[in-house]
Amino acid sequence: MTLSFEDFSPGRFGSCGPRHVTREEMLAFAAEFDPQPMHLDEEAAKRSMLKGLSGSGWHLCSIIMRMMFDFYIGRTASLGSPGVSELKWLAPLRPGDDLVLEVEVVEARVSRSRPETGIVTFKCIVRNGTGQALCEMTSPIIVKRREAALAG
Amino acid sequence: MTLSFEDFSPGRFGSCGPRHVTREEMLAFAAEFDPQPMHLDEEAAKRSMLKGLSGSGWHLCSIIMRMMFDFYIGRTASLGSPGVSELKWLAPLRPGDDLVLEVEVVEARVSRSRPETGIVTFKCIVRNGTGQALCEMTSPIIVKRREAALAG
Repeated sequence: MTLSFEDFSPGRFGSCGPRHVTREEMLAFAAEFDPQPMHLDEEAAKRSMLKGLSGSGWHLCSIIMRMMFDFYIGRTASLGSPGVSELKWLAPLRPGDDLVLEVEVVEARVSRSRPETGIVTFKCIVRNGTGQALCEMTSPIIVKRREAALAG
Repeated sequence: MTLSFEDFSPGRFGSCGPRHVTREEMLAFAAEFDPQPMHLDEEAAKRSMLKGLSGSGWHLCSIIMRMMFDFYIGRTASLGSPGVSELKWLAPLRPGDDLVLEVEVVEARVSRSRPETGIVTFKCIVRNGTGQALCEMTSPIIVKRREAALAG
């Protein structure tokens, strides 16, 4: 692990992508977890509010998680997250979208209850290839402070 | 579709389950979307804050989505959701857990911008076999009013 609490301070953190999303993986996720017609049935989806096949919002969140992992979480001394403080689905995920994730640190503070850790709150925005925001998510992550991270 | 806006009013809606979660599906989800050591590596997980292999929070959300679909969303004239207003991961999902989902309607109101629809806000709590709450989620869903639902 190369990133600890001290490596995160409020402001822009960076961006990653593009991550190409295929129709096949959208349909596979929907079939397993969210088989609503708008996510699974091309004809029903055309008649839906979203006017065409759209990915499950939970699939989009799961893809964002993987993008965050590959970008920084995978090398961060993270202990996990207590939840999500904001999650907005703004526009539909479409087959063939190329996703770019922008990450900002909103807040970084030492934990009162576990002073060997800190709480880093990240805000992520994922956009499609045209720059349209599809999802915004704000989530705190518990990260070891450097001394604790070096101790293992 | 048999459930429309008028079928939801504030109060307890019901519960569903149990849904058994296997180690294999936990590892498969983690490998694809959230390959943090605490979700994927038995030995590393033992040393983690959660003291044993735990499922990804996004896997738990996706399982909750499927439980909601099978319980009521699949027969509700739902148009989708703008997001999640509260999401808390309270305790780890473990291999072999048998999940029960409790659903409450927090609020049901007619949409101002689209009066043929209503916004129904659901609060879900998922518990393991010992009754321990693993996750709480509050989310608004856009549902057609009965007349619009009958019109198709």
